[in-house]
Amino acid sequence: MKTEGLSINLATVRQQWNLREAVEGCARHGIMAIDPWRDQVAAYGLAESARVIKDHGMRVTGYCRGGMFPAADAAGRAAAIDDNKRAIDEAATVGAECLVFVVGGLPPGSRDLNAARGMVAEGFAAILPYARSVNMPLAIEPLHPMYAADRACVNTLGQALDLCDLLGDGVGVAIDTYHVWWDPDLARQIARAGAAKQIYAHHICDWLVPTKDMLLDRGMMGDGIIDFRAFRRMIEDAGFHGPQEVEIFSAQDWWKRPGDEVLQTCVERFNQVC
Amino acid sequence: MKTEGLSINLATVRQQWNLREAVEGCARHGIMAIDPWRDQVAAYGLAESARVIKDHGMRVTGYCRGGMFPAADAAGRAAAIDDNKRAIDEAATVGAECLVFVVGGLPPGSRDLNAARGMVAEGFAAILPYARSVNMPLAIEPLHPMYAADRACVNTLGQALDLCDLLGDGVGVAIDTYHVWWDPDLARQIARAGAAKQIYAHHICDWLVPTKDMLLDRGMMGDGIIDFRAFRRMIEDAGFHGPQEVEIFSAQDWWKRPGDEVLQTCVERFNQVC
Repeated sequence: MKTEGLSINLATVRQQWNLREAVEGCARHGIMAIDPWRDQVAAYGLAESARVIKDHGMRVTGYCRGGMFPAADAAGRAAAIDDNKRAIDEAATVGAECLVFVVGGLPPGSRDLNAARGMVAEGFAAILPYARSVNMPLAIEPLHPMYAADRACVNTLGQALDLCDLLGDGVGVAIDTYHVWWDPDLARQIARAGAAKQIYAHHICDWLVPTKDMLLDRGMMGDGIIDFRAFRRMIEDAGFHGPQEVEIFSAQDWWKRPGDEVLQTCVERFNQVC
Repeated sequence: MKTEGLSINLATVRQQWNLREAVEGCARHGIMAIDPWRDQVAAYGLAESARVIKDHGMRVTGYCRGGMFPAADAAGRAAAIDDNKRAIDEAATVGAECLVFVVGGLPPGSRDLNAARGMVAEGFAAILPYARSVNMPLAIEPLHPMYAADRACVNTLGQALDLCDLLGDGVGVAIDTYHVWWDPDLARQIARAGAAKQIYAHHICDWLVPTKDMLLDRGMMGDGIIDFRAFRRMIEDAGFHGPQEVEIFSAQDWWKRPGDEVLQTCVERFNQVC
């Protein structure tokens, strides 16, 4: 079965494997692209992680994740900016094609979403010169509106693209089917993103009915209600032909299965429904 | 404490009281506006419900709910249209100011959200002449995007207003803080709705962090992260000055408390934070 055009976000096997095991697992299944998480890289060691990834000839379609800009005070926001610069360095070290951002939600005690959104824009503006200086593209991932309070106050593709336009070169979007499939404005915004060359990543994950947990009950492609082929056509028609990156958080299902079974299923479903 | 401008959606006390008890409870707390649900009215009897509501001099700020238009086949869609005409009759019988719509999600087995949205538009078009003939306003309630698959494929205020514009006179929106608070385009769309006289209802309910259940863990005003005063200012600036209607689904908290405690808390929070 085809594995070209398939990438595995390593969160998909985070409970089964450490970074080296995950890279080896992907290689064993013929999958030659990954997106590791910061905590996975930190646990295995940054230099060692970079070496393992390079030794296996892995393409790194993204590095997860920067963001979490809003904070209750200026010191907190400055700390987030510093941390994001470190994330940029790490992304460069592992050879990532972009740093993916979950921008953050409301600061503790705040009910002011506009203020949080302002902090996000300021945070990006503060790190962008550094990102440009090391040629690391920044990919804003709009998250599903159910995460607006606690994870990401950028919640539609259109909103993310407005932010890209505000910030300028070096900022684009990571489009995850799970987060944006519901958007009535989706087709138009994907076309807009493509025209502006702002699509940096294409994540895939299915929406289960019912969804039993708002964070950790995401579905394998084909098990939910997303039409992945229709989605891919929109992305490709917009001019993006990069890998589809599987990112599934699934505490009660896929994280409990052997990693090899998860990857085998990813390959099968990638061929069958994506 | 002030109770003028406060309405209680009777789902808020659905586990504690039948329709008569709920109406009496509201009256006891000085709350003179309600929004009953079809199943509550059916269980108590339509004529009896209308009598109890009238005898207590209750204003009926809405009737919940019409909708659920998409279906797998034409017979199913026709049955939904018939059922919605019955809902219009019931709404008129209880003296409701509008019939509130949860439009429905994907039909079983479908992954085509655009098709579902088309079925919703067709369903409304089919019932609208009848609604107009009995002067019953239809209030489309955009539901949070996390319900797009299984409850409502109208998920933003802007999308609902586009549908209103398509359908014409007699169709407006029910704006529920819980469903729309996250929308980056909210202020603009509320102003648009007001300018077109399309705001028919203003529901209030808080978003809890964390939210433990996607349907039944909604919050009492003040317990979550929504800024109700800022929201009300937008609604009033848009020209809507009708009651704020409390609608809280809360299986593990408010539905387990005595109805009088729930209503007393609604009155207190209405005065403190709304």
